[in-house]
Amino acid sequence: MPDPLITLTTDFGEDSPYAAALKGVVLGINPSARLLDLSHQVPPQDVRHAAWFLANCLPCFPPDSIHVVVVDPGVGTDRALLLVEAGGRWLLAPDNGCWEPAARRLADTPRVWRLDRPRFWRHPVSATFHGRDVLAPCAAHRSLGVPPDELGTPAAAWARLRWPEPVREAGGITGEVVFIDRFGNLITNVPAELLPPWFTAELTGHSIMRHVRTYAEAPPGTPVTLISSSGDLEIAVNRDSAAAALKAGVGTPVRVLPRREPQP
Amino acid sequence: MPDPLITLTTDFGEDSPYAAALKGVVLGINPSARLLDLSHQVPPQDVRHAAWFLANCLPCFPPDSIHVVVVDPGVGTDRALLLVEAGGRWLLAPDNGCWEPAARRLADTPRVWRLDRPRFWRHPVSATFHGRDVLAPCAAHRSLGVPPDELGTPAAAWARLRWPEPVREAGGITGEVVFIDRFGNLITNVPAELLPPWFTAELTGHSIMRHVRTYAEAPPGTPVTLISSSGDLEIAVNRDSAAAALKAGVGTPVRVLPRREPQP
Amino acid sequence: MPDPLITLTTDFGEDSPYAAALKGVVLGINPSARLLDLSHQVPPQDVRHAAWFLANCLPCFPPDSIHVVVVDPGVGTDRALLLVEAGGRWLLAPDNGCWEPAARRLADTPRVWRLDRPRFWRHPVSATFHGRDVLAPCAAHRSLGVPPDELGTPAAAWARLRWPEPVREAGGITGEVVFIDRFGNLITNVPAELLPPWFTAELTGHSIMRHVRTYAEAPPGTPVTLISSSGDLEIAVNRDSAAAALKAGVGTPVRVLPRREPQP
Repeated sequence: MPDPLITLTTDFGEDSPYAAALKGVVLGINPSARLLDLSHQVPPQDVRHAAWFLANCLPCFPPDSIHVVVVDPGVGTDRALLLVEAGGRWLLAPDNGCWEPAARRLADTPRVWRLDRPRFWRHPVSATFHGRDVLAPCAAHRSLGVPPDELGTPAAAWARLRWPEPVREAGGITGEVVFIDRFGNLITNVPAELLPPWFTAELTGHSIMRHVRTYAEAPPGTPVTLISSSGDLEIAVNRDSAAAALKAGVGTPVRVLPRREPQP
Repeated sequence: MPDPLITLTTDFGEDSPYAAALKGVVLGINPSARLLDLSHQVPPQDVRHAAWFLANCLPCFPPDSIHVVVVDPGVGTDRALLLVEAGGRWLLAPDNGCWEPAARRLADTPRVWRLDRPRFWRHPVSATFHGRDVLAPCAAHRSLGVPPDELGTPAAAWARLRWPEPVREAGGITGEVVFIDRFGNLITNVPAELLPPWFTAELTGHSIMRHVRTYAEAPPGTPVTLISSSGDLEIAVNRDSAAAALKAGVGTPVRVLPRREPQP
Repeated sequence: MPDPLITLTTDFGEDSPYAAALKGVVLGINPSARLLDLSHQVPPQDVRHAAWFLANCLPCFPPDSIHVVVVDPGVGTDRALLLVEAGGRWLLAPDNGCWEPAARRLADTPRVWRLDRPRFWRHPVSATFHGRDVLAPCAAHRSLGVPPDELGTPAAAWARLRWPEPVREAGGITGEVVFIDRFGNLITNVPAELLPPWFTAELTGHSIMRHVRTYAEAPPGTPVTLISSSGDLEIAVNRDSAAAALKAGVGTPVRVLPRREPQP
């Protein structure tokens, strides 16, 4: 039985001591915990970015893994802090919806608790750093086997993110860009299953008619569509940034229009 | 008994192989060591930044943890390399004061050794990378149980950082900004205990009269004061960068002036 | 016997979920694996950067360590994915030469396999993310003791990087800048052993006559030569970026001209 695994996902960056403090607090309570950074580079307070990030990596992790998420623009308000069980994975996060798309991929019905038992917290509790003072200590106690019903109270309702869904319309599908990766590739919310056999994708005034299987099939500089590693429609430019070349960002609308003839 | 924990804090960034080399050297000597990154994003050669960083996370770590710090503008000169014990934690760092504020929070009297026993070093010793060739191997040997008196010689004196202290003056307190986090929040060196019940904070020509408990209480765009997670006076702008909005940086003076009426 | 060690080196950055997905996939197969980030900051698709990075840190790691490298501009084409054994270390990487300079420092003759056994892969295999679907699962299976001959087929040929070698010419040596670190130091491909006792280095129209042992010996602002921690000729400016000051980049030619009198 390996030591318990606790991952960290935050918007702290790594020049500040905040992420390091989370690690120290966890190890101060459970010195055997295995800590793993997922990212401290979520853009500041970007709950939607965190949600997409988590939905596309947490399902890879094994059952019993514990995941602390600190992207928390509402810190110190009366928003709750939650413990969630979904498909055997455990998430600890603010009640802002960031954890929810990941949990839905893991289980039909997540179990949710409000973390409301101060005896498991770090004191004095700062008004501005609940990650260090509530989430990290509760994750460490969970990793030691403290049952969820001791850490909190079952919750029946929680915040949901406005998560954009693609819309089927007469003549096509309207989706949007939901994530841009480091290479400038544009990942949309249109799943591959919805795509017609042949199609043109339109965004920011560009019509993209070429669909490829891999980046390397595209001539350098030509925008193409392909299926992303998350299984969604992606727009890319081989060896260049599609975000820069097409002037697109998160939220940019993307239209998918069926065609009669195959794509080149 | 968990495997020994060795953390790393450097100014190397992660595109260079320097941080990775530290890890390899540690594991080459003690394959069971548990390595943990605290940060490789200390600004280049910024000893003061490293000192504040360490002072605000190392006290969270449990006793017996080992902490390697490589922020070393004087590499290759005759500045010493030190092993420090403070409150049961072990630090290995250049003798430039970066470790000292953290140690003072951990213990009244740290114990300090000069690392002067080449038989524990990696050879040939580079003139420009003592982190890899001296600090990392000595940390690994320490984690294997080599006593400090074999790794080095007790030291009676060491460099201290000019660490700015707030000054109480007739009519108020003068402090300064000592850290700026990724969100642009300005953390000062004025501890909450020094603050009068009601006050105005002045910096860069701005008078900040509103004190809040949490970021979310502030109207977007309004500068406010609050107590940072480190327990100090902090100046923030909800959902914006106070550093940019107020044109402030590390070293910017901050005046705290008592008031008669409560803050709004 | 410590748990098996698997390191990760990628060009994914940390705002995307790709590196985190690698970690989840490894732990889903071998929950006891110890994961270690080397870097996710290799510049996008920069195979040469990855090669220099790996050559300068992998030799520090102990035998039996496993190293996954995902810098893969050819993902989805028919380029192979390889498992390599060199000096007891195991590398898993695309067949683009990125692993080869490191392996040559570890062993005269690496052993190489093509990873061609889909039963060890994650399915469905994405056309754009073989790191997650092939390399990470094969690394995890290797860490569980699956022999290389089950994971793949011995390979007799593989891609080699055009790795620039210094040229000795009448009157001197011509090399080039092969790496720039976070401090702006320029590391060349001219090994210290090739240098004459006294020399002038020329690049981008500058003649550098001062050779020092450590950065701190150089007056601030003066370009100097020294021996890098990798044992090569390096050009630096104390407390400044040589890359910016001398307008040099990777590939910039560097001439080494012998002199009769000592360097100052």
